[in-house]
Amino acid sequence: MEPYDLCVIGSGPAGQKAAIQAAKLGKRVCIVERREVVGGVAINTGTIPSKALREAIIHLTGFEHRAFTGDRPASNAKVTIEDLTFWCQQVIKGEIDVVKSALMRNGVDLYTGTGSFVDEKTVEYTHGKVSGRISSEYFLICTGTSPARPDGIEFDNQRVVDADGILKLNHLPKTLLVVGGGVIGTEYASMMQALGVKTTLIEGRHRLLDFVDQEIGEALQYHLRQSGMTLRMGEKVVKVEVVEAPQHSQARENKLVEATMESGKVLRAETLLYAVGRQGCTGSLALENVGLDADKRGRITVNEKYQTEQPHIYAAGDVIGFPALASTSMEQGRISACHMFNLPTNSTPELFPFGIYAIPEISMVGWTEEKLTQEDIPFESGIANYREIARGQLLGDYIGMLKLLIHQETRQVLGVHVSGTGATELIHIGQAVMALRGTVDYFVDTVFNYPTLAECYKVAALNCVNKLQHV
Amino acid sequence: MEPYDLCVIGSGPAGQKAAIQAAKLGKRVCIVERREVVGGVAINTGTIPSKALREAIIHLTGFEHRAFTGDRPASNAKVTIEDLTFWCQQVIKGEIDVVKSALMRNGVDLYTGTGSFVDEKTVEYTHGKVSGRISSEYFLICTGTSPARPDGIEFDNQRVVDADGILKLNHLPKTLLVVGGGVIGTEYASMMQALGVKTTLIEGRHRLLDFVDQEIGEALQYHLRQSGMTLRMGEKVVKVEVVEAPQHSQARENKLVEATMESGKVLRAETLLYAVGRQGCTGSLALENVGLDADKRGRITVNEKYQTEQPHIYAAGDVIGFPALASTSMEQGRISACHMFNLPTNSTPELFPFGIYAIPEISMVGWTEEKLTQEDIPFESGIANYREIARGQLLGDYIGMLKLLIHQETRQVLGVHVSGTGATELIHIGQAVMALRGTVDYFVDTVFNYPTLAECYKVAALNCVNKLQHV
Repeated sequence: MEPYDLCVIGSGPAGQKAAIQAAKLGKRVCIVERREVVGGVAINTGTIPSKALREAIIHLTGFEHRAFTGDRPASNAKVTIEDLTFWCQQVIKGEIDVVKSALMRNGVDLYTGTGSFVDEKTVEYTHGKVSGRISSEYFLICTGTSPARPDGIEFDNQRVVDADGILKLNHLPKTLLVVGGGVIGTEYASMMQALGVKTTLIEGRHRLLDFVDQEIGEALQYHLRQSGMTLRMGEKVVKVEVVEAPQHSQARENKLVEATMESGKVLRAETLLYAVGRQGCTGSLALENVGLDADKRGRITVNEKYQTEQPHIYAAGDVIGFPALASTSMEQGRISACHMFNLPTNSTPELFPFGIYAIPEISMVGWTEEKLTQEDIPFESGIANYREIARGQLLGDYIGMLKLLIHQETRQVLGVHVSGTGATELIHIGQAVMALRGTVDYFVDTVFNYPTLAECYKVAALNCVNKLQHV
Repeated sequence: MEPYDLCVIGSGPAGQKAAIQAAKLGKRVCIVERREVVGGVAINTGTIPSKALREAIIHLTGFEHRAFTGDRPASNAKVTIEDLTFWCQQVIKGEIDVVKSALMRNGVDLYTGTGSFVDEKTVEYTHGKVSGRISSEYFLICTGTSPARPDGIEFDNQRVVDADGILKLNHLPKTLLVVGGGVIGTEYASMMQALGVKTTLIEGRHRLLDFVDQEIGEALQYHLRQSGMTLRMGEKVVKVEVVEAPQHSQARENKLVEATMESGKVLRAETLLYAVGRQGCTGSLALENVGLDADKRGRITVNEKYQTEQPHIYAAGDVIGFPALASTSMEQGRISACHMFNLPTNSTPELFPFGIYAIPEISMVGWTEEKLTQEDIPFESGIANYREIARGQLLGDYIGMLKLLIHQETRQVLGVHVSGTGATELIHIGQAVMALRGTVDYFVDTVFNYPTLAECYKVAALNCVNKLQHV
């Protein structure tokens, strides 16, 4: 068989975008995927299922419009695990079809099997008893990650689960412990709380999502607590075991999970979600055959063009570490392919957005207040509260807010922080203004549709400009 | 009493923004409002109530998530007029509070009464037996419009209604005729159809919303028809009367409205909404006392700074005519106040967005394909369909689309057209790129949160760039 120009290992967001970009440049491209279906963690167990779950929860519980329905719940039906699963499966199926047809349309060949390097130009794929070899000029490793499972914790997929397992629960617990206040832990904890599961979130540090602007992070913690969640900060879990429940507990099969903290506290719930850390899926790649290796968390090291120490072998996506977001993984994949085949790209990592699909949703781009202060960059902030604008009233979102950080002298936009409905969409208006070097005056002078959340930009800008007048 | 710096007549969007802007500049400002409550048509009978109704319909019928619920309807409850009214009243009340508190916070005085000019520096307000006089340096007329009621049609607020009346219906009709395919007619027709009311929309021209890009407009007509609506285009209504219903019709009180077309067609329904044209509310202003007058549609003529022929009397908002959108009215109000008190502004009317809250929602900024072709400006288009992106799948919006119009040579963004969920929010990303002179490559090189509708920009840009390569 004639060699490929590019062989991609893994069909997640990074792999898809790399393959399609290379194909559009007229290259012969194939993808090796160990699952029977394309899409990687993003579609099958991670991003998309958790976002589908989130949509389902917000919709089925009537959460989104709770302000209007008052004591008449929008949906009287108790939400079951079947409702949620049905919804998720629909979305996953649709998304797999979209990805598959995009790959086919672009003439990307697909091999099902686990890929491993034979030599610097050859990968072998194995699926049960079927195997084959693929030669290629370039390779892209984007095999993603799987949840880390620490020694001493027994995962049983019902009482003690990781982020993959929580989507396979066969019932909704009444109580839940979530270990880990990173993106995944915070997202699931807030969703479960919205579903009516009494949730306790345990985090070793004193802030959830510590890369987020402090004002937004603190507001998040406030609102999670207001929703009824218990936050246990600065706690480390040292033991997890399944124990007999007290008679009166009504726990399923009379068992509970018991988590013991280093501080001596004991917490119990029907289910425990362990969401601390993920491990790069590099174990079966036989990296040693091409003179590469992974670090102890399974991660591969690359340069700024996503090349490994073998310049024709690239790596992208979660397998190379932070930020491990589907959005950035796609960009890394695309940039890798462009670099292989000499198409110039223009990437500005400092303007990569962050999106956290908690309830409330959070998004940010650019600097936080703390970093600006650390770096002695003089700024002023402008705030718009959703409840003060018509669209916020229409949505019944009384806690959403948008914050602009503006340079006191140049009036340039240094950062945008949003918490509330549509945050991940809204952020892109500010991102464009930052990228194209607009100032706060852009927002003051712009007409926004009424009623929209986008109006927050104007309200926040006017707030900031009024403050700047007094400097 | 010491004279005011600015007296605003009408407390709608234009009046609010003018008053607050002037107050922020340290001026003494008052508003004269004939209603007992602030907000004008936008809050009380127009924009906000119709958008609240739209939210209520989309939510209460489960319309938004119909793709997932399939044959298990999300909301089994039949939606009643009481549900819809309850929702609308909540929103209206909230919004009135927001506006009132913003005015109070800024020290704007409020006089309840109908305002009329006594002389060039004095306005009299009258409310029942109470009246008073206000002197001011400057005046802003923003008294808005009311629905036009042609001779020969009897409006009874139940069978034959205008846009104000439809919100006061005491029952939901089974069948509805809507006369007029402008923004208001199209919005209400699509909402009522979504509610399950069999709706016929009658328009004299051969396109609804004829200022909209043709591709988007045609798609709208296709989807309205698909939703079960009947469109009667190129028809003129010559007679409207209430008639006895046939025995089998099950019509309420056995009456129907009958509309006769110039073409001879006769259409019948339980209710008819007349939504053709609006009339400026200038009749009680006594414009003759200051040497001004209104045209035959009650509109006031202004220059580009919103000054009438009396340079100290400005007019803004719907009362000056097209585009008569709350968003642009606000800007006109703000610009008027800035001009009075010598604060420079920087306004780009060619980048004013249009938002149409039909189902589906439509929004646009910049040029349409037709105008570009007329003006011999060479463009290429790039399309993203919501169904091809993850967020579209998550929302179950399979008909949404975003279109970019890009200059074939300079690659600058000439227009953005969106139809589908969140269109009025999404448009502002493209608007920022246009205003700050970005090219299509901005979208290609930008990382968007995943999954968001904002990703449509990248997908559409890649689509366009691929086409441009073949030029």
